[in-house]
Amino acid sequence: MKNIHHLLQTHDVDAALITFMPDIQWACGFTGSNGLLIVRPDDVHFLSDGRYTEQARQEVEGAVIHTPGYALFEYAVEEHLLGDARRVLYQADHVTVAQLERWRALWPSVEWTPGTALLTMEVASKSDEEVARIRRAQQVTDAVFEHLLGFIRPGLSEQEVAAEIVYQHLRRGASKMSFEPIVASGRRGALPHARASIKNLESGDLVVLDFGCFVDGYASDMTRTVALGEPGDEARAVYQVVLDAQRRAIETARAGLSTKALDGAARSVIDEAGYGDFFTHSLGHGIGLQTHEWPRVSHQTDDVLPAGVAVTIEPGVYLPGRFGVRIEDIVVLRPDGCDNLTASPKKLVVL
Amino acid sequence: MKNIHHLLQTHDVDAALITFMPDIQWACGFTGSNGLLIVRPDDVHFLSDGRYTEQARQEVEGAVIHTPGYALFEYAVEEHLLGDARRVLYQADHVTVAQLERWRALWPSVEWTPGTALLTMEVASKSDEEVARIRRAQQVTDAVFEHLLGFIRPGLSEQEVAAEIVYQHLRRGASKMSFEPIVASGRRGALPHARASIKNLESGDLVVLDFGCFVDGYASDMTRTVALGEPGDEARAVYQVVLDAQRRAIETARAGLSTKALDGAARSVIDEAGYGDFFTHSLGHGIGLQTHEWPRVSHQTDDVLPAGVAVTIEPGVYLPGRFGVRIEDIVVLRPDGCDNLTASPKKLVVL
Repeated sequence: MKNIHHLLQTHDVDAALITFMPDIQWACGFTGSNGLLIVRPDDVHFLSDGRYTEQARQEVEGAVIHTPGYALFEYAVEEHLLGDARRVLYQADHVTVAQLERWRALWPSVEWTPGTALLTMEVASKSDEEVARIRRAQQVTDAVFEHLLGFIRPGLSEQEVAAEIVYQHLRRGASKMSFEPIVASGRRGALPHARASIKNLESGDLVVLDFGCFVDGYASDMTRTVALGEPGDEARAVYQVVLDAQRRAIETARAGLSTKALDGAARSVIDEAGYGDFFTHSLGHGIGLQTHEWPRVSHQTDDVLPAGVAVTIEPGVYLPGRFGVRIEDIVVLRPDGCDNLTASPKKLVVL
Repeated sequence: MKNIHHLLQTHDVDAALITFMPDIQWACGFTGSNGLLIVRPDDVHFLSDGRYTEQARQEVEGAVIHTPGYALFEYAVEEHLLGDARRVLYQADHVTVAQLERWRALWPSVEWTPGTALLTMEVASKSDEEVARIRRAQQVTDAVFEHLLGFIRPGLSEQEVAAEIVYQHLRRGASKMSFEPIVASGRRGALPHARASIKNLESGDLVVLDFGCFVDGYASDMTRTVALGEPGDEARAVYQVVLDAQRRAIETARAGLSTKALDGAARSVIDEAGYGDFFTHSLGHGIGLQTHEWPRVSHQTDDVLPAGVAVTIEPGVYLPGRFGVRIEDIVVLRPDGCDNLTASPKKLVVL
């Protein structure tokens, strides 16, 4: 169990309810889909439902474990698990309005104290062990990309390529994909989140490949864009702009920088090349126990990037009706720069 | 666009914000991961971020489409999309306390009106077209199960079987899995949500196989338990009890029944056989645009099952440290019974 008791002091409360599952996994190791932590001055209680009786015993350490039926909160009332707590902290950014109303009814004497981003910074700053897990997941993804370079050919459908991507990850020990693979060829490449369709790959297509997996609970995420045959001058030029933008961001990345500044490092390269209107998303996102977690690296956010945070660096240019290019690595920010966890080559591959 | 204007009358409001993504998909067809519907007396506005500009144009009909940057709510304020609405309905069971606070700050003059389960019954009652989509997803899953009967053998790891399950689904046109496949052999079968491990299948194991996929946006979900070699008398007896319980529930299932009564139909069979303490979860769950949706079919819920609802029927018995058995079909409830969408055989298969 990570030390989360400091929440009681910093928020001046008698107890805290942690209900956001990735935070629970981070704090106590539980990997199931339903659970609850009750932090009290002298102990922590973990609750889940009867499906997880065995699993909770195997995974959760440092908490009193309860696995009643599904009515975890009713059980907590019956068992008096909040004790005589008067002020109770809860995760206002993860608890619905209806859920809070239910708690108010169950514990009418409690003063509910909202907190946001309670564990966000701690979860974002990865330990060496966590970085090693992300790296292991990315190593599987890198190996699959290498395999793909010998597999992809005109005539295969995007769906067939996506099926191969998933299969090769699972065969290499991934527990699951971190998201549905994106295989977007030719004009479909201009849809940044196109997934995979029945469209066949054709000679002359640029193909955007974006995929990742979970290994030991941590996610990988990578994008590469490859060409099937000679893609032509403008595609090559756009590829170079995106690659230059990505390199500039990686050279710039370090702890202490703002998300806006890191996004801007890449965006300015694309702006200067005249493609700024076609870089329609943010530069990247935090990654770890979730595929997308805090922070969003965007020109619309202005958070300071902490040491140890793992973020994707994924600029893209999308020309509607024509093609798209995106290149994405995962980096871990250090005081003096960053470690790139992605080993796959980034020179334009022409297959 | 489905007709959702009735929300304004039934809740006596000037506008409604729909923010729960499966409800948005149900209402307007959008399959992306970020969006918002604003329902006004004379029109509906759909908002998403710049990643989805093309996709929104392709998928969304019957709404004014906006795809600004990520700040959808700030955009809605700037564009005056709530008009002069005084009372605005929101989904209190899907909006966090922090999100509501943000809206209050953005629209200080609005009276925010909480509603829960706003579209739940409508989403739950499937149209013939929706049932056909679930059936198509289940047909893929049935075909994969048939393939597995020729694939599974001692010496394969659970993970290798899971990888094959996923690959065969994607090859057959599934867009993605509806959840991470469960392959739980021998004593691991006693963990109802065990996923797949590096454990090898062994002769004498019962193997619980639980998997499903998405086709055309709708989910399948099936469990079968197979034996690798003769499983022994108690395993056969437990299998028969679970099968009898599942059949009893399917014979009982019809619209108008309560969730508690349907759960009880299966649970009573298992109780009478003396295994009641080892059926540690609820009987089933609604399924459709989400793998798990309303209603939960449980002895702890007491909802009336509407006509057209698709639910899983999945009793199980789990003997800790020994083995587990679960059998699961999807049925659609009708006034006089139910349609079973699952075609895979349920007689105990000994491989």
